[in-house]
Amino acid sequence: MSPEPVDQLRARSDAAPVEERSPQPRVSRRGLLGAAAGAGVVGIGIGAGAVELADRNAENTAAQPAPASTSYPFYGEHQAGIVTPAQDRLHFAAFDLTTESRDELIGLLQDWTAAAARMTQGQGAGPLGPTSGSYDAPPDDTGEAIGLPPSRLTLTFGFGPTLFRKDGKDRFGLADRQPDSLRRLPHFPQDNLDAAKSDGDLCIQACADDPQVAVHAIRNLARIAFGRAAVRWSQLGFGRTSSTSTAQVTPRNLFGFKDGTANLKAEEPALVDQHVWVGAGDPRGAWLAGGSYLVARRINMTIEIWDRQPLGEQETVIGRTKAEGAPLSGGTEFSPLNFTLAGSDGEPLIATDSHVAMVHPDNNGGVQMLRRGYNFVDGSTGLGRLDAGLFFIAYVCDPVTHFTPIQTKIGRADRLSEYIQHTGSALFAVPPGVKQGEYVGQALFA
Amino acid sequence: MSPEPVDQLRARSDAAPVEERSPQPRVSRRGLLGAAAGAGVVGIGIGAGAVELADRNAENTAAQPAPASTSYPFYGEHQAGIVTPAQDRLHFAAFDLTTESRDELIGLLQDWTAAAARMTQGQGAGPLGPTSGSYDAPPDDTGEAIGLPPSRLTLTFGFGPTLFRKDGKDRFGLADRQPDSLRRLPHFPQDNLDAAKSDGDLCIQACADDPQVAVHAIRNLARIAFGRAAVRWSQLGFGRTSSTSTAQVTPRNLFGFKDGTANLKAEEPALVDQHVWVGAGDPRGAWLAGGSYLVARRINMTIEIWDRQPLGEQETVIGRTKAEGAPLSGGTEFSPLNFTLAGSDGEPLIATDSHVAMVHPDNNGGVQMLRRGYNFVDGSTGLGRLDAGLFFIAYVCDPVTHFTPIQTKIGRADRLSEYIQHTGSALFAVPPGVKQGEYVGQALFA
Repeated sequence: MSPEPVDQLRARSDAAPVEERSPQPRVSRRGLLGAAAGAGVVGIGIGAGAVELADRNAENTAAQPAPASTSYPFYGEHQAGIVTPAQDRLHFAAFDLTTESRDELIGLLQDWTAAAARMTQGQGAGPLGPTSGSYDAPPDDTGEAIGLPPSRLTLTFGFGPTLFRKDGKDRFGLADRQPDSLRRLPHFPQDNLDAAKSDGDLCIQACADDPQVAVHAIRNLARIAFGRAAVRWSQLGFGRTSSTSTAQVTPRNLFGFKDGTANLKAEEPALVDQHVWVGAGDPRGAWLAGGSYLVARRINMTIEIWDRQPLGEQETVIGRTKAEGAPLSGGTEFSPLNFTLAGSDGEPLIATDSHVAMVHPDNNGGVQMLRRGYNFVDGSTGLGRLDAGLFFIAYVCDPVTHFTPIQTKIGRADRLSEYIQHTGSALFAVPPGVKQGEYVGQALFA
Repeated sequence: MSPEPVDQLRARSDAAPVEERSPQPRVSRRGLLGAAAGAGVVGIGIGAGAVELADRNAENTAAQPAPASTSYPFYGEHQAGIVTPAQDRLHFAAFDLTTESRDELIGLLQDWTAAAARMTQGQGAGPLGPTSGSYDAPPDDTGEAIGLPPSRLTLTFGFGPTLFRKDGKDRFGLADRQPDSLRRLPHFPQDNLDAAKSDGDLCIQACADDPQVAVHAIRNLARIAFGRAAVRWSQLGFGRTSSTSTAQVTPRNLFGFKDGTANLKAEEPALVDQHVWVGAGDPRGAWLAGGSYLVARRINMTIEIWDRQPLGEQETVIGRTKAEGAPLSGGTEFSPLNFTLAGSDGEPLIATDSHVAMVHPDNNGGVQMLRRGYNFVDGSTGLGRLDAGLFFIAYVCDPVTHFTPIQTKIGRADRLSEYIQHTGSALFAVPPGVKQGEYVGQALFA
């Protein structure tokens, strides 16, 4: 018997859980090795231990997940699922409250907190589990994740503008705590939004490497919410489209291009502090300090039209090469972009209306987002086209400065707009992390 | 540096492709170890080599895929994707032809064959690839799978009844080759079918351990079909719901129960011959000998209602325990079912209208199916419920004997019918395997 598979087996069953040594999730040495094996990255240094790995077949291991036994702490300074290295699968759900009782809302958040703390550690949603307890009562877990490891599950909770005021009504006595920046996003140029895939009082982002684990989490949280909140819309995603850690290779979106090369990374804490976490400036939003804003946009891609474009047109639209992801101004994937370097025709090599020129921080006053989106395919449309695209998620310290201006600009002028259509939109305030014994968003109700 | 992760890395990058040594896909010794590590099965014997593995944490490794570098041969006596150990993810697409030219149909099948043979081996859809060839022409691959390994991709092609005759019209001169059993499935009791999720002239089942690989395959085959066929409907699935090999643990469906315990397994070739492969009896369907019939049923589960049932009711409906999957007549998961053993009340311990009693071969004249379904969640309905369930796929030698009678019976009397609704339905004839130099279904056009 060759030794590798046996070691593989052992590594899988005894891999230590990830250690939490700082406000931001850190990977343990073993976890780092696992992530590096998954990402095929050469030469990594994070946290305490710097490890050198060589893998000549780097990209070919990109689909290998970290050990499925890896879990992230639920409690901490910030909610997990933001700077956490992006997992491979998503189930995102927006909820509307069906109660108008502040106490029931608080009770729901308490129940969700308890269940989330359990499920992220690979346990059932409730203490009795799917197959024990009273034979005559519904189980407190639905059972489809029995035996499945934590799979790096994170659950991230957010509060929509309508939680604070809906149809002019302050249902929960929260209107005077609504942060100035937590307003429904404006209608952007070329938006074609479906109300049934937009907005919501509450949201939960479930990310895991196993879709059954993410689906199980949302399904149980929806079950727990019965009588208090109901799912407004939900979205599955696969194939994360952004790295959030330097230990991850840059994945590809359904245009076939690398996506998120220049994304903010967990290993840039000063930039994360500046661009992702909400400061203490807004007195109405003091409860949100240390939290973030989650912008969700369902972006359909006109796949069939894109696929008929020559490679040259595709690369001009994006501003990077398809193979390498290198800027059209030259170099390799992570080379700086040169927006002024001109070709023989005197025009910039990176077109000024290319996607990368439109969204790059250098052309947006230095503003950066932490993107955390996922590819999606939701079957097909009645026209025989794939209902597919990118479920865009970005975490920013303030959508008014960090999202609205850029989206307004690219909706008007980005060449990529010809190939996409925004069909869903939502904004949520994501409270800071939860302390042991407290519940998510507790400061809002203090 | 601990040795395990490095060995893991090596095992991932150099695992040998699976060997084809017989009409049915066989796993190599290394492949077997990989599959066993994934499935956590104790004591396995397949083909030439019998290997003993012990893993006390068996179920906890269930989500670990086989090495991503594993590929299956495209050419062979039978199409791959039938007795192939079920992969973790599905993208299924049904197509309608937009041409009425027999030559164009043949050309499409030739083009699909060439692309499928490439993609299942981890190559691009076309010889030039996503990033080379003429700069002014559309790439012959869309690029989102660049760097992703084969991920056990299989592509299985099928022909619907309408390929032979549609609205009374014989578009392709095939009407006299339509097998007697290839007729639209009847309307079953309690069917609530959506025409937009049913039927189709052609189908492709793409299964892989990485959803991006399955989606990439369908997307490129749809691209190649442009002008000749268009997607009629498509369905993504995750979390296979049936084992098709004894080397796999029994997965769980979204009712939280193990599904497919008594499924036909690849390691039972005599039963597979008897129940899955089409024989040579039907002169009109001689081209189908060695093929199979694919029954697809989109089965919505009323998740929220199920979740409010006591454990006792859930187990009575299924006829097995939730934890272990053991028959209610006693024993463990793989114990024989005793449909006559009565409890103290004189009633059978396994209710006669329980799902397992309804579908068990002992109660259906010995008829068996090779099930190969997947869990799905397609967002939520307008009522705030998950649009979720089981995308049922079964391969049978004849739907008239092996599907219609059972479905008629369970639609009428199965207690499980209270919690499910069939929303899509399709039947396809799946031609036998393809020889090098030929194209899928070639005998039909001979």
